[in-house]
Amino acid sequence: MRNSLYIVIVGCGRLGSHLANQLSRVGHAIVVIDSNEETFNDLSPDFSGFRIVGDATQMAVLKQAKLKRADVFFATTHGDNVNLMVAQVARKLFNVPHVLARVFDPRREQIYDQLGVETICPTAVAAEMFLMAVASHRAAAGEVKS
Amino acid sequence: MRNSLYIVIVGCGRLGSHLANQLSRVGHAIVVIDSNEETFNDLSPDFSGFRIVGDATQMAVLKQAKLKRADVFFATTHGDNVNLMVAQVARKLFNVPHVLARVFDPRREQIYDQLGVETICPTAVAAEMFLMAVASHRAAAGEVKS
Repeated sequence: MRNSLYIVIVGCGRLGSHLANQLSRVGHAIVVIDSNEETFNDLSPDFSGFRIVGDATQMAVLKQAKLKRADVFFATTHGDNVNLMVAQVARKLFNVPHVLARVFDPRREQIYDQLGVETICPTAVAAEMFLMAVASHRAAAGEVKS
Repeated sequence: MRNSLYIVIVGCGRLGSHLANQLSRVGHAIVVIDSNEETFNDLSPDFSGFRIVGDATQMAVLKQAKLKRADVFFATTHGDNVNLMVAQVARKLFNVPHVLARVFDPRREQIYDQLGVETICPTAVAAEMFLMAVASHRAAAGEVKS
């Protein structure tokens, strides 16, 4: 039984660094890739993973990250197209079992889906939360019984 | 028993228009406020609510939206400070029972919380989804029993 996963994260912005810090803290093996070295400043002092400065759309960089060994791959850059590309490469060429990409434009979500890439759209997720708030308001007001 | 809620939404961008369309579709009474009339183009043809072109930081605009009658208030503009301000006004001056604001900067979330404004941070929510994906991967791989 193996409790620690090998997780590669592309993009060390607000989302990527948050995930890297959280997942490192609970004992997973993390590699973070970003072309801008300064973004690594957002990694916490106790981050125990690896940092790779490089362009993740380059195969050499992904090989350096030992992508073949990865259990999970996250594409979290601010470019929807970059995320789509690297996510597809991770899935199809490196056979990473679990691949997730952030997508800002919800209209692209369907296309990504057809290309076999699982996505998370922050706007759509936020909308869901707001809608849940409406549902909970109604429940709290006793207007709806479930 | 009243099934339809009166919901005021400030900001008709991607998030605001999505919420307006969804909530109007299921029968709620919606008012959308945005200073840019063009944003209303994102409302669907069957949107049956009201549109107000105006600056929601002006009391006159909020009064025009009959905020006193509102059950729910959403602040979804792209400005964290605008969202904070109008959300506070809705809660404290108009006594809207359920107020929610979008906040992009998670570092502001705590401050908002102290000011009594409930917030949703899309980045934090997306991070939560990614972390859930890791948990589900482990569960699917049989590495964790719960």
